[in-house]
Amino acid sequence: MRKKTTVPLKESCVDAAREVIAESGLEALSLREVARKLGVSHQAPYRHYPSRDHLLAAVMSKCFIDFRAHLEARQASDNPDQDLGELGRAYLSYARSHSLEYRLMFGTPWPAPAEHPDLVRNAVYAFDVLRGVLRRLGEHMPAAQIDQRALFIWSCMHGLSGIRAGDVMQHLAIDSAVAETASEQVLAMIGLALRPPE
Amino acid sequence: MRKKTTVPLKESCVDAAREVIAESGLEALSLREVARKLGVSHQAPYRHYPSRDHLLAAVMSKCFIDFRAHLEARQASDNPDQDLGELGRAYLSYARSHSLEYRLMFGTPWPAPAEHPDLVRNAVYAFDVLRGVLRRLGEHMPAAQIDQRALFIWSCMHGLSGIRAGDVMQHLAIDSAVAETASEQVLAMIGLALRPPE
Repeated sequence: MRKKTTVPLKESCVDAAREVIAESGLEALSLREVARKLGVSHQAPYRHYPSRDHLLAAVMSKCFIDFRAHLEARQASDNPDQDLGELGRAYLSYARSHSLEYRLMFGTPWPAPAEHPDLVRNAVYAFDVLRGVLRRLGEHMPAAQIDQRALFIWSCMHGLSGIRAGDVMQHLAIDSAVAETASEQVLAMIGLALRPPE
Repeated sequence: MRKKTTVPLKESCVDAAREVIAESGLEALSLREVARKLGVSHQAPYRHYPSRDHLLAAVMSKCFIDFRAHLEARQASDNPDQDLGELGRAYLSYARSHSLEYRLMFGTPWPAPAEHPDLVRNAVYAFDVLRGVLRRLGEHMPAAQIDQRALFIWSCMHGLSGIRAGDVMQHLAIDSAVAETASEQVLAMIGLALRPPE
């Protein structure tokens, strides 16, 4: 029994897979469960996804596309320093408001990447937003130094997102003014790290 | 049937709980399962731990004690800048070599902290190692600024640990020299952030 939908089955499988993961965890994801949720035959999802891993890669790939779109929709700024700050704020707000998608992108073992080139490409596209801002900030900077800065900033943002999502920070008696403005404090420290040498 | 051990039951429960988590995941942890593993009666662990959460808090608390000891055992240095670098290396090596303990400390929902003051105290003790190094680095620095720096450095270290443990980084075509020396690159950026203003 195939339910009539306006969305093609290929896309609705991705949405249903996300729902299964949200409701029951990653372990519960299977093509069978997705078919059940959509009210289609057990075989139907296999027309588009040869395996659970292919569907998971499609879900993760979509997360990276959405994440990149969220980063690109940040407050516009012509000043590259300010733009980097806005990018950081957009990153942190995504991690906080889309914790499931964030965990899927950054905290989930990847399905064999060689078989899922779209996933790899969309992850690189998202990372390239940061590289682009850093290139505008450091004109004529060698690519290796751009990547050094990108890895550093990504570490700060990923770490702060994880710390804020966890339970430890609130018990460390961190100065309350610092804790309450943690994002801005960490972004300010990043700004100090990127100061040009005098 | 009570197995004869040289270790008191209270401590051996913690070790057995760690094993249960390592083998079957946090969901599998129960006082019953720990009793089974130790070959003691179902009731025996309750003499020391009124609930699973009390045992989990004891496991986590032990992780923080071990983590602090690992940080304190870092390469000694009289130079506070170098000492901070050694502390960072010790942090990253612990996260890599003790991934289960690391996840338990920083990636696990805490049992109600008000009921587990030892856990809170040992977490603060571990964080205080970083505060201590930063105080020596910035003599007469206000406590709020020490905490600002500590939160920033912790974010970098926690983020880099998570990134290195995950699958994404290797697919982002990051400059190979940067990727291969990620720890030193991020520590160098932290050093730049802490430069005194000219």
